Amino acid sequence: MPRTRSALPSTGPVRLGPDARAVLRPAAAEVRAGFWHARRQVNAHTSIPQGPDLLESAGNLHNLRLAAGTAQGEFQGAYPFVDTDVYKWLEAAAWQLAQEPSEDLEAHTDRIISLVAGAQQPDGYLNTWFQLREGGERYQDLRWGHELYCAGHLIQAAVAHHRATGRDELLDVARRFADHLDATFGLPGSGRPIDGVDGHPEVETALVELYRETGERRYLDLAGYFVDRYGHGLLGGEAYCQDRVPLREATDVEGHAVRQLYLLAGATDLATETGDAGLRAAAERLWRAMTAAKTHITGGLGAHHDQEDFGDPYELPNERAYCETCAAIASVQWSWRLALLTGEARYSDLIERTLYNGFLAGVSLDGESWLYVNPLQVRDGHTDPGGDQSARRTRWFRCACCPPNVMRLLAGLEHYLSSSSEDGLQIHQYVTGRYRGDLDGTPVTVTAETDYPWHGVISLTVEETPQDRPWTLSLRIPQWCREYRVRRGSRTYDQTDAPVTDGWLRLEGTWAPGDQVVLELGIEPRLTAADPRVDAVRGCVAVERGPLVYCLEQVDHPGGGLDDIVIDTTRPLAVKHRPDLLGGLITVVAAGHRRRLLDGGSDGGWWPYRSAEAAPGVAPRAGEPVELTAIPYYAWANRQDGSMRVWLPTS
Amino acid sequence: MPRTRSALPSTGPVRLGPDARAVLRPAAAEVRAGFWHARRQVNAHTSIPQGPDLLESAGNLHNLRLAAGTAQGEFQGAYPFVDTDVYKWLEAAAWQLAQEPSEDLEAHTDRIISLVAGAQQPDGYLNTWFQLREGGERYQDLRWGHELYCAGHLIQAAVAHHRATGRDELLDVARRFADHLDATFGLPGSGRPIDGVDGHPEVETALVELYRETGERRYLDLAGYFVDRYGHGLLGGEAYCQDRVPLREATDVEGHAVRQLYLLAGATDLATETGDAGLRAAAERLWRAMTAAKTHITGGLGAHHDQEDFGDPYELPNERAYCETCAAIASVQWSWRLALLTGEARYSDLIERTLYNGFLAGVSLDGESWLYVNPLQVRDGHTDPGGDQSARRTRWFRCACCPPNVMRLLAGLEHYLSSSSEDGLQIHQYVTGRYRGDLDGTPVTVTAETDYPWHGVISLTVEETPQDRPWTLSLRIPQWCREYRVRRGSRTYDQTDAPVTDGWLRLEGTWAPGDQVVLELGIEPRLTAADPRVDAVRGCVAVERGPLVYCLEQVDHPGGGLDDIVIDTTRPLAVKHRPDLLGGLITVVAAGHRRRLLDGGSDGGWWPYRSAEAAPGVAPRAGEPVELTAIPYYAWANRQDGSMRVWLPTS
Repeated sequence: MPRTRSALPSTGPVRLGPDARAVLRPAAAEVRAGFWHARRQVNAHTSIPQGPDLLESAGNLHNLRLAAGTAQGEFQGAYPFVDTDVYKWLEAAAWQLAQEPSEDLEAHTDRIISLVAGAQQPDGYLNTWFQLREGGERYQDLRWGHELYCAGHLIQAAVAHHRATGRDELLDVARRFADHLDATFGLPGSGRPIDGVDGHPEVETALVELYRETGERRYLDLAGYFVDRYGHGLLGGEAYCQDRVPLREATDVEGHAVRQLYLLAGATDLATETGDAGLRAAAERLWRAMTAAKTHITGGLGAHHDQEDFGDPYELPNERAYCETCAAIASVQWSWRLALLTGEARYSDLIERTLYNGFLAGVSLDGESWLYVNPLQVRDGHTDPGGDQSARRTRWFRCACCPPNVMRLLAGLEHYLSSSSEDGLQIHQYVTGRYRGDLDGTPVTVTAETDYPWHGVISLTVEETPQDRPWTLSLRIPQWCREYRVRRGSRTYDQTDAPVTDGWLRLEGTWAPGDQVVLELGIEPRLTAADPRVDAVRGCVAVERGPLVYCLEQVDHPGGGLDDIVIDTTRPLAVKHRPDLLGGLITVVAAGHRRRLLDGGSDGGWWPYRSAEAAPGVAPRAGEPVELTAIPYYAWANRQDGSMRVWLPTS
Repeated sequence: MPRTRSALPSTGPVRLGPDARAVLRPAAAEVRAGFWHARRQVNAHTSIPQGPDLLESAGNLHNLRLAAGTAQGEFQGAYPFVDTDVYKWLEAAAWQLAQEPSEDLEAHTDRIISLVAGAQQPDGYLNTWFQLREGGERYQDLRWGHELYCAGHLIQAAVAHHRATGRDELLDVARRFADHLDATFGLPGSGRPIDGVDGHPEVETALVELYRETGERRYLDLAGYFVDRYGHGLLGGEAYCQDRVPLREATDVEGHAVRQLYLLAGATDLATETGDAGLRAAAERLWRAMTAAKTHITGGLGAHHDQEDFGDPYELPNERAYCETCAAIASVQWSWRLALLTGEARYSDLIERTLYNGFLAGVSLDGESWLYVNPLQVRDGHTDPGGDQSARRTRWFRCACCPPNVMRLLAGLEHYLSSSSEDGLQIHQYVTGRYRGDLDGTPVTVTAETDYPWHGVISLTVEETPQDRPWTLSLRIPQWCREYRVRRGSRTYDQTDAPVTDGWLRLEGTWAPGDQVVLELGIEPRLTAADPRVDAVRGCVAVERGPLVYCLEQVDHPGGGLDDIVIDTTRPLAVKHRPDLLGGLITVVAAGHRRRLLDGGSDGGWWPYRSAEAAPGVAPRAGEPVELTAIPYYAWANRQDGSMRVWLPTS
């Protein structure tokens, strides 16, 4: 597709600058009904409104008052980044206010912005941990201090608030902090006192967005300085902090997953704004390495608990999948930037997979409890550790990074759904609602009706179009989809006569208001296997349907656990509409049986390893048949505690 | 077997008290040649002699001098248990001196014992971390302080030194510390000021041994108090510290593996000395739960890196197997106590497996470098984290618990090989050397010649025997062994006419000096599969031969990595004598091939999950044939860095 040129200013988290090299630019969208509307209603009317009380009781707002000198007491919270919980909530509130005015939410937002502004020091610095607990000593421990990470989230919240409401209060705070950083950090000889980067990247992507919002080039330059100073040992050279190797030279994603992904989002922003070919190549290379060998089927990222980091290639454990909710969010943010930069559909394929699975599992259906880690298996007999890394939903975390991160992504979700270019309008994600791009300033609007992801039919109607100028309506055909049909006017095409190129089905021509397109994606349930190098799932399949990954929960399989269950892959899968279940969903029903385990031989069964000549420990006859009921992974852990598994043994 | 009664005093780590309820009592043994002799020579002449310099350069001895006031400077080391490195080394030196006098080693030992004695406080307390870094504040943080853990290792070293040399210097230090503990810890109302336990069990088993050495009953009582105060929330109720549930009520091993195992060793000691049926039942129950579902094929224990803890049942990962070397050692110590208590051979089955595999892998063949974690797989493209959890051998660790622990077990290994009872002599482990038990004080000695584990023939000769009293020579038939023959005099029996009962082949009758028995264990290489609930190794087999678990190393398979290798289980395994390789060993050679991976479909191969209808990502034809060379697992990581795997996919 040709390169984007002019654009209506995006009102979302990513606004391209005037010189951006992106192929696509974000289009506006509305979500009016359907799957994501329901999730966003819960976000808007339960999760976000509960935020202020949770931030109050966890002490985050108290800390701001302490820093402002308007309250007394002890600092509360265990981490130097507790302020970001507030900033992420403010960003969520801003996107929410942009959609749906609320006096109550606006009042909370204003009040909390005042607290933030009050806590800021005269020179722009703001971090309650260091102001209160470290006697004001700044930047003494960049590896662990998170001071710039906090600045990044503040900046993102401020940009969101400005874009959503047009108001300056928070943006002024953010600019003061950014100006302070610009005066503080730089190369030796630059006149700035500190040559350093933050142990947790995040400020880079935020500074690019602040440049986009304000036009101040120095924020972009500062972001570029930070991105390129990782990998030079300023943080001790650890992969964990993205300091082992410069990003431009990296060949694989590594270290702490969220750190890696936020850094890559910033690098992609830079490549977009500056045309930096080295950063762009690195971002594309690392995205491909990540998806090919370090991404769980849910889109979840991060294989290790103890460093929250990526594992080795194809090291994708199930019960110890870390898959932090924040990593899924960061993956969506990064992939969207690559989708805009390159115009390639695969990035939105991953976004779709992540949104419906690894991301959405992070919040309960009622919007009141959360998962920090998102395993793909909970074993029979699981002993839960409790705490932040629990496989049970938790009301709030000691390290509460994920919940407000979920809130801000859900509240701003419409900004990740469509794009436009001088070529036309691209629909990346299917919702009931409206997509609105422009062709050199002339609006192009398409409305959509769909029951996606439960059904594959998407009915699109052109609402606004230039009358005399042909353009292309590009529809992403999901990577999982093997068959589709599209009806345009009176003609119907399928994959043979309307082929997909690079993931896009391109419908060209001139359009008139009222023109209809009906896309029908084949959405039969399917069994999926993994590359054989993913040792953790050898001999297993996963059930999928459309963009949804399914799982078994113990509660649906009375009479036993899940670890002795086998799926019979020769029997057909069935779908079952279950309006009664978990807010209404479609289950996939499969045939299976429980293994008949041997009771143990002459050794009394104390040793689980036996001669491979006989299938060890398994009686030759299949055991009791079991009807397997698979629910979408996003809906797991919303009923009673018990085991769960995504990958099902086939024998 | 009937209960043991009188015994020659054991000179090893476990000496039963006069009222002990054990079926067996430890017998003396000598290792004169063969497999373990070679490993022990390296231990004696490289590892142990290097200890003093390593303890000097790591600062452990310096800390003792600081505490004694004979040196100046800063405390060195990152943990409050650094003193235990010294104590474990002293225990290793003591067992070594008992075997082989050495003026040099004795001088080092005396010197270091003086440093320990000098650091002790007048009331018996001794912990350099708390004396030097915490201003002498004691027992303020029992959960993390390790003060009693340190006392335990001191006591074990002191008992070893006393048994090995007859000298009192270190025993006096240990008794002063034990007396101090006895005056300090006890139930409310006992007159002792503190009701508490240490976050890291260890002192319990040590106190029982001190009771055995000194006859002081109060040390036994104190051990009993500690064992029973776990599980009552004194440490916050965490499973990690063994405080979630009282041991008597526990149904599975849990929490930090080494903590669990040391606690169980102490509980088993108590059950042995007191006849406590509840503790005995718990120990037997937990051992069985552990071996059935939480033990790696190498005998390695501990599934998680981040808490060094046991995972859920059947959660036995390969690349993230933790399998701390210290956990293998603790497992041997605990299992030996159960073997003596119960007389059952299965405990020595696990000891054998652990010694030859999960334990021995912890030290390099040259005795100069170490593994703290012992994974069962290192992936192609592995990025090593370095540090203590590295999959590459390390000269010494920041947390150096494992190396001196290996030294003490190797130096005292002969004490885990045989036992006697009023019924006769039991040989648990086969070595070239001599086993010496007694029948009510009358010596029974058997010598052995064998190339075990390389060959299965063990030639035994009765050397000393009572002339007129029949007794039983019990030979453990390893749990892995499916066929054996035994020749006694002119007659040969096999498994059909000389059956094994409870793991023992019992040869009864009267004996004369010079009587010979030749045991021949079938030691063909074999393929082993796991219980199907061990998801991590589904569709895989392991190569074993005798007690040895084998693995592939990348260095033996040029032209590619190991993660695309498949073993052909229909082709026979061959053995190859390789005197040139890794100090001399027998490899197992198998047929295999490299998978022919598809290059990726229309999506460019960025997504590793595909329709299960075709074997995903694998071309239908088998790829390039590869001769697979398996080496014993204990010998891995002694050549160049590279990938490794124990479990091999079969298709």
